[in-house]
Formats: sequence, structure tokens, C-alpha cells
Amino acid sequence: MGEFCPEISGVLMADTFFCTSITIEHLHFNFGAFKTSAQIMPNLPGIEEIAGDFGGDFFKPLLICDANTEYLAVKIRGNAAIPVCTLEAGESHKDWQAVETILRNARDAGLGRDGIFIGVGGGVIGDLAAFAASIYMRGCSLALVSTTLLGMVDASLGGKTGFDLFGVKNLAGTFFPARHVYMPMESLATLPLPEWKSGMAELIKTAILDSDNFLEDIASLIAVFPDGSFSGGFPPDFASRILAIGTDLSRCISRAVRFKGAIVEEDPLETGNRRVLLNLGHTFGHALEAAAGLGTISHGEAVAWGIARSCDLALALGVCPPQRAERIRALLAAYGYETASPHPLMNSGAPGAFIQALGSDKKKRGGNLSFIVPGEKSAQAVKTAADSAAAVPAASDSFMDTISQIIGI
Amino acid sequence: MGEFCPEISGVLMADTFFCTSITIEHLHFNFGAFKTSAQIMPNLPGIEEIAGDFGGDFFKPLLICDANTEYLAVKIRGNAAIPVCTLEAGESHKDWQAVETILRNARDAGLGRDGIFIGVGGGVIGDLAAFAASIYMRGCSLALVSTTLLGMVDASLGGKTGFDLFGVKNLAGTFFPARHVYMPMESLATLPLPEWKSGMAELIKTAILDSDNFLEDIASLIAVFPDGSFSGGFPPDFASRILAIGTDLSRCISRAVRFKGAIVEEDPLETGNRRVLLNLGHTFGHALEAAAGLGTISHGEAVAWGIARSCDLALALGVCPPQRAERIRALLAAYGYETASPHPLMNSGAPGAFIQALGSDKKKRGGNLSFIVPGEKSAQAVKTAADSAAAVPAASDSFMDTISQIIGI
Repeated sequence: MGEFCPEISGVLMADTFFCTSITIEHLHFNFGAFKTSAQIMPNLPGIEEIAGDFGGDFFKPLLICDANTEYLAVKIRGNAAIPVCTLEAGESHKDWQAVETILRNARDAGLGRDGIFIGVGGGVIGDLAAFAASIYMRGCSLALVSTTLLGMVDASLGGKTGFDLFGVKNLAGTFFPARHVYMPMESLATLPLPEWKSGMAELIKTAILDSDNFLEDIASLIAVFPDGSFSGGFPPDFASRILAIGTDLSRCISRAVRFKGAIVEEDPLETGNRRVLLNLGHTFGHALEAAAGLGTISHGEAVAWGIARSCDLALALGVCPPQRAERIRALLAAYGYETASPHPLMNSGAPGAFIQALGSDKKKRGGNLSFIVPGEKSAQAVKTAADSAAAVPAASDSFMDTISQIIGI
Repeated sequence: MGEFCPEISGVLMADTFFCTSITIEHLHFNFGAFKTSAQIMPNLPGIEEIAGDFGGDFFKPLLICDANTEYLAVKIRGNAAIPVCTLEAGESHKDWQAVETILRNARDAGLGRDGIFIGVGGGVIGDLAAFAASIYMRGCSLALVSTTLLGMVDASLGGKTGFDLFGVKNLAGTFFPARHVYMPMESLATLPLPEWKSGMAELIKTAILDSDNFLEDIASLIAVFPDGSFSGGFPPDFASRILAIGTDLSRCISRAVRFKGAIVEEDPLETGNRRVLLNLGHTFGHALEAAAGLGTISHGEAVAWGIARSCDLALALGVCPPQRAERIRALLAAYGYETASPHPLMNSGAPGAFIQALGSDKKKRGGNLSFIVPGEKSAQAVKTAADSAAAVPAASDSFMDTISQIIGI
């Protein structure tokens, strides 16, 4: 396994850990007209490995990263003469400007329609690189090296791309699955705590949809984190704590990837009623992100808060046993997520902005908003008119009144 | 037929002409995962007709037009309370700014993913409206009312969308076919001569690909135009001239639509070797457009010049009988197109820009440029390296030397 263990400087844990305890898992998915291969692997792929996966003689790639992941992109590139496009980091830079920068780099590097965009980073870089790939010369090829927990368990798989516009998250986007997704556990070694927090929320979301058994597995990881939650900083012994759960963590990631992949295979364009389940917590979460100002709160924290609100709504509608809703909320709270309402970021002006953001939700169909809420098992969609009397059976009051109560405004 | 004949003010020919001599032709195509219906029809569709075609109870549209076609959009809208987004007209405004304007109007109008963008105009409006529809909330619904000859015979069908970026035509775009395409002959009544010129070039292109018999049909239309060509202005009796060929013209349009539709059905994403044939004249033409400055020369005129260059290349490679190449060039010249090389717009600086633009062509694959040239029948692709010795069989010289000779620089 020596070739998989190059030296990394400044990492929080021994690279060899991943090499010895984690084996490569190679998964294949069919997302509509697209085929995606996903690899959960100990180390970063080298550029030759990526070139090999694409096959053929012609390989003209562009590496796309942000300031935080540039060192990973450079490591992937090795000595190859491949251009690297480095964007500003963070959700607040997930805009057209960033997309245009990628397209300009591709044009300057002379990439044709058979060029390959390789995004190296988390959810933001993945969404941007994939969107740019989907429109460059009407679509070139795409690989993603997913370097965050959020990217691995959610964003990198299934083809949702996009960027934020007019303060609306992912208002512009496409469905454009990557040909190859690499999930190198090595890159988690340097993941900051907020990123863990962001990814764990999507992992919890997936576990709610999958099974209570999966929820238990996630609960068992919690001892690793400081004070048993995300509320503290990076403790000095964090590396050894993570070390202790490496295999369990990669198994959870694999389980989430397989679960999401299966759902997206059934409903790649979210036109049916399967894929929409993956939006559990997201209608509330996106509205909170927008009301607080995009980039103010991490996606994962917003989703965790949104899941708590979905539990409230499920209880109000009587579709989820109180014990299950309570268990979910308790797990979120144990991980240190803010679960109370109104959220501290919803200052005096934010409730109005929150309601407005809800009305812009992409899941709106026929003028109706859709919320995914936990059910007896997994989750289910509830739909209703945003600004009229409730269309949800079992809702005892007008829907917006219910929502107002839930978000505490 | 009375309901199809509303009054139009200021048109060049009697609206009743179209009503009495042209019947609605309804064509259906399957473009990959998309279904498109195309209607060649005497008059503009009303908004109720469009709503009916989309079916269902929920109909939330946005009309998209430019300053030239706004009156048509308003006519389609009638008394319905539907927002109209009016863009600046012309290829020089086919940019991200225009796309963003459409998206902002859609957001402001509260459209969801089930909203419907209705583009009313020619190739530019069609490409912009379709691109915006393809990315709004990851894709909403799309109808196109194609009001120019170019739009009808080429741009509106088959899902190519896009806008210009960094001086490269359609550098950014998607494949996103419209659900419904309306081709109202009525809208041709007010079409200015340059637009006829632009559309006729694509019609000639399609006829070259289809059959010499189709070329004859197009040759027979020429008497309608001033001096037997496009070189003059709009003659006073133009309305009655067009009147005389109305039925023949709609038959040519129908033939072109059916031919293009069949090719796109075979190869919707231009990944095979069928759809690429529709680019006859376009590699040279796009490079001329870019070298002259996008918007300086109309797309059709550039394509006509590009077809003449493709004839030169076909002759240099010995793949087209000289009589056929001569016949094509003679038809182009008869219609008043510039067919000589170098093109008058290629000033001293343009040859370099021309070569650079060729190198940015979207059809580049594996570092090779592809040209479509007339063959014994129809046309064929010839590929070669842009900056190395010729890879084209039968090319007697290095390829760029051949190109240089052909474009006269």
C-alpha cells in the first residue's frame, strides 16, 4: 500500500492510519443519462489515476479549488503541467463571478468540449465546478475530488450544481453528475470543526431517511467530538479521537453514499417523489440561510436547525411519533446544533426575510411549498399553499400560522 | 379560421393570406429525454393556446422578448396578467447580463421550478430564453415562439442554448429543447431584409445537407427578392412578392424543420457524427463573426461565407464534385451573399483574430478542429490538427496552409 501513502505535512493524524484501516470501495451509479463512479478511498487520487479513469489518449484537465483546498489540488497535480484555478473560499463567493472565473481559466487553457474539469473541495467548489462544466461549450467532462464530509455524504453525488443569485441559494443551476467522484479520507485529516459540523448534519439527515439503526451508528461517533458535541473548539487530542473512529466513519460515509445514490438513481431529476426526500430540513434551512444572509451560517448548521423545525411540523401534523421526533432533536442537540426557535440569527428583521425566502423555495410546485418531515420511518413530503388556508390534511390551523408558531415569530 | 386572423397593424402583407393558404402543421420530436412539438402555423399563438398545450391547471409563465419583438409578445399575452421581460436586441447583447435579467424577472414574478419561460423572437432571444430556462432552479419549462426565418429553420429546434462570453460565440450554453415551438408565418410579415438574409443562409445550409432537389426549391424563391438578391433594400412591392411564394416558403420551412428534427433525434447531444453535419459553414462562419467582433456581421451572412469556404476546402480535399461546389457558391452569390475571400470585414488585424477564433471552436475534439464540407451528396466532417501537419487524407499541404489559402491570408 506504500504508493497510497505519500507524506503529508501538517495533518492532524497519521496518514498511515487511513492506509491500514480503510480499503477502497468503488461504487457505480446510473443517474438518468449519466454514469457516475464513486470511490471511497484512503488517499487523494493522483492525476495519472484520474486520467486513467477517463481512459483514452486525450486528457486535457483543469483543476478547480479554493484557497483552502489549493494545497490538495497541487498535491493531486504533482509534477504534471496542468492549470489550477483557485477561487475565493466560502458560500459568500458562490456566485456568477466564480463561475465566470472558471470558464475564463478553461478558455485560456484552450480546453475544448472534451476538456475535463476537476473540482477539488467541498460542497461549494463541487457545485461551482460542476455548474461550470455543465455549461462550458454546452457541457464538458467532470470529476470531483470531494474533500469534506459534506461533499462526500451529500453534495458531490447526484448532479445538483448551482450558485447563489439575488440572495437565493442555488437559484441558478443544472443537473450534471460527475463521471468520477473521489472521496479521499486523507482530506478529512485537515478538516476544520465547522466543516465537521456541516457534514454531520447531512449525515444525520441521511440516517433519518434510511433507518433508526443508521441513526444509532451516528450517535456512536459522538464521543469523538469535544464535550461530546461540536460546541467546543478543536481539542488537542482530536486527531487521536478521530483515529479511533476512522473505520466506523468511513462505513457511515459509504452507507450514506449508497443510500443517496440509490434514491437519485430512482429519481435523477427530482421530478418524482423520491429524491425530494433528500431535502429533509432544507426548506427551513435554506430560508434561514437566506434570512441570515448567505454565508452567515453554514449549510449544515442551517439544515440541522431545519430538521428540528421539520420535527416540529411533523408533530403538528401528527405524522411522526413524538418519541422519534424527540430522539432526532436530542441527537442534534447532543452534537451541539442550535435546535431552538427562533434561531439566534433571526433578528428583528429576519422573520419577514425568512417568510420571503420560504416563498422563493425551488421546491415550490403549482404555487405550493413542499416540506419534508420525519414520518414513522424515514420521511415524507407535506405540501401546502404558502399564502392561503392550509391544504395539508391534519393541519389544524392555517399553514402559515403553523409555520409561524414553529419558527417562533 | 376567423379566430386565427386577428387584426395586425402595420404589417407588410395581408394577414388573411397566411390564413387562407397555409394550414397548421404539427410535428413531434423526441430529443433524448426531451419531447418537442413544433407547429408551423399561419398566426401567432394566443396565451390560452400555449397554456392549453402545457395542460394542467397551473400555468405561471414569463414572456421574454427584445425591443423588436415586444409588440408580438404583447399580442400573444392579450389581456392576461403575465409579466413581459424585454431585453436589448441584437447579438451584441447576447451575454450573461441578459440571462441575469431574465432570471431576475422570473424571481420577481415568483416563478417556481414549474414556471414556464416563453421566448418570443429569433435566434438570440431563443438561445437566451432557453439557456435561462435550463438553469432557473435547475430547469423550468420552456416554449419558444420563433418569429424569424433563422429561428424557424434552425435555432428554435433541437435544444442548443447559450450566450457569448470572452468574445467567443455561445461559449456558455446547455442542451435544453423547448416543450413547444411555435412558428407563426404571420411574424415573418414584418421581418426586415437582414433577417431574411440571415435565415435564408441556414435554409440553404439545410438544403445542401438534404438534397439538390431541396436546393432547387430554394433557388426558385429567389425571384421574390429585390434584384434577385438580398443586396438591395426593402422594395415597395416586397409584400406582394412574398405573397406570391407564401405556400412555397412554408413548405421549405417545414422541410427544413423535419430534416433538422430527424438529425437531432438521432444525435441529440452532438456526441455522434450526425448532428455535427448541421455545423456546415459554421466553423468558418463563427470564426469570422468573432474576428469581426460579435454582432458586426449577422450570423446568417457569416454562415453563408463559411459555406463558401467549406466549398473551397471540399475542393482542396477532393471530396466534392466541382460542379456541385460551384452550384452552391453560385446560389449564395445569387442571393447576394459575400462569398469572396478574404471577407471585407477581415481587416489587417482580423486574420490573426480569425485563426485564434478557429482555435476556440466548440467542435474541437482531442485538440483537433472539425470542419463540415459539402460532399458528393449532403456533407461530411473533416478533422485535422489546428497547428500541426495535416491529418486530413488528400490534403496536399499542411492544414493551416490550406486554411490560409482558403481564407486568403
